[in-house]
Amino acid sequence: MIYDLIIIGGGPAAINAGIYAARKKLKTLLITKNWSNQMSETGQVENYLGFESILGAELVQKFISHLKKFDLEIKEKQEVQGIKKLADGGFEILNGRHNKERARTLIIASGKGPRKLNVPGEEKFIGRGISFCATCDAPLFKNKEVAVVGGGNAAAIAALETAKYASKIYLLSLYSKLLADKLEQEKIKSASNIEILFNIRVKEIQGDKFVTGLIYQDKISQEEKKLSVEGVYIEIGSAPISNFIKGVVKLNKQGEIKIDLRNQTSQPGIFAAGDVTDVSHKQIIVAAGEGAKAALNAYDYLSKLKR
Amino acid sequence: MIYDLIIIGGGPAAINAGIYAARKKLKTLLITKNWSNQMSETGQVENYLGFESILGAELVQKFISHLKKFDLEIKEKQEVQGIKKLADGGFEILNGRHNKERARTLIIASGKGPRKLNVPGEEKFIGRGISFCATCDAPLFKNKEVAVVGGGNAAAIAALETAKYASKIYLLSLYSKLLADKLEQEKIKSASNIEILFNIRVKEIQGDKFVTGLIYQDKISQEEKKLSVEGVYIEIGSAPISNFIKGVVKLNKQGEIKIDLRNQTSQPGIFAAGDVTDVSHKQIIVAAGEGAKAALNAYDYLSKLKR
Repeated sequence: MIYDLIIIGGGPAAINAGIYAARKKLKTLLITKNWSNQMSETGQVENYLGFESILGAELVQKFISHLKKFDLEIKEKQEVQGIKKLADGGFEILNGRHNKERARTLIIASGKGPRKLNVPGEEKFIGRGISFCATCDAPLFKNKEVAVVGGGNAAAIAALETAKYASKIYLLSLYSKLLADKLEQEKIKSASNIEILFNIRVKEIQGDKFVTGLIYQDKISQEEKKLSVEGVYIEIGSAPISNFIKGVVKLNKQGEIKIDLRNQTSQPGIFAAGDVTDVSHKQIIVAAGEGAKAALNAYDYLSKLKR
Repeated sequence: MIYDLIIIGGGPAAINAGIYAARKKLKTLLITKNWSNQMSETGQVENYLGFESILGAELVQKFISHLKKFDLEIKEKQEVQGIKKLADGGFEILNGRHNKERARTLIIASGKGPRKLNVPGEEKFIGRGISFCATCDAPLFKNKEVAVVGGGNAAAIAALETAKYASKIYLLSLYSKLLADKLEQEKIKSASNIEILFNIRVKEIQGDKFVTGLIYQDKISQEEKKLSVEGVYIEIGSAPISNFIKGVVKLNKQGEIKIDLRNQTSQPGIFAAGDVTDVSHKQIIVAAGEGAKAALNAYDYLSKLKR
């Protein structure tokens, strides 16, 4: 059993690639760990052409039900670990410990995810006191002390969301000032339960079953200190989810998959679309358009193979 | 008075460029002859992500009302005749005989329009018996004899639409067979009032106040003949609307504006998006994504100018 096309991802680029591939009658499999994390976690979307204002989570649902009108296979809650090029020109993907799927073409549309600190304790305590989503998890920290790592808008917003619940928030900025917008900075200053610590590098996250604190270094004095908290938000930006395809296609310095005007990667037969690529701007409507383009270019590629 | 950005066009690329530019607070003018001709003339749209099935004309209305929520100037029913580069790095556009507008950047999103025959009589009789839109105009030719020029799907569909009203349809194919889908070809064959003429090159369209007939050449015998008809549909595909920018930016052989991954044309400061460009596929969602990207790249370009 070999598919014409396997699409990896569950955001607007992947979903729209699925719609366009199915309409072209390609034998298509879409594999995704989850449906658009980024859109689900955002608030109102006011820049997706055709919808003047709609909740991100609601728009994803519209996308998914649109996709499901078409004839393609979908495997949810599966994560792709690796990709292998086959001797016959096709590709094999490894999803789960023993699952393998094969296809003549691939579209990588795995999107972006939160950037990690890469410090001891981080992996262990994700979901056990460490969160990447203040909007989702703020109520969990009612009357507790928490740290927010980061100094940009996302960190500022996470701190402000959490301030409604937590007794105390430490905002840990790597730099000597916040990078968040002026408006957010003013809100932070007027919040009585937010304390900003500048020039802080987080070294380790500690705990037993759940987070109990973190070790940080003061970049000025070089001293290491401990901070007791029951929650840690990591809000230091996002990164492309491209680890599983490293070595198979060319990535840029930021880890984004390099694509050309036809969404072709450095490996013929592998296309890519949306936030995981080096497309100049990351937006829902841009990702959707790129997904369509990737599917139509995969179709053109397959048509040439069959000639 | 100089704008940050002038957008030329009224389809999904232009409209979405307008939304993104206005959200970035660019001083923006959008100039268009009309709102998305192509979308208005199509039937149900089932591949615009988020809308499972919607009439093209209805989707355009949603796009326009979305655009009008934002703060930008719009000039409708104006056609851009030419573009001039100014000594200070900006651009001047000529719209109408004496109107001029100036901007630091431009986005060309003028789309595609029907391809013309470029024969004597064509310009004179457009709207006087010559039509490019069967869905719009078929009822006008009730009980009359008409010619449909073309041999692809669009021509076949125009012939079939018109067959409901006209007494007789001559389908004039340039080639020795039709290029339309099998399904359409079968419908054509079973229509009693459609006659196909093969290997036909139209040389001239004749008339007085309205069309009275056309002169064609039989490509095999080289003979010129006259066909008396009261209507002519020209259905020979579409072409980018790029004449007004010829010589200012590079076009490809098909007359499409060449763009790079940042929607930049060969002329710094002029961006382009959608069906008028050499983007690999022409689709509503692709054009919308490209429009967003063009606006964000124009914004980035302006930010660098101001530094």
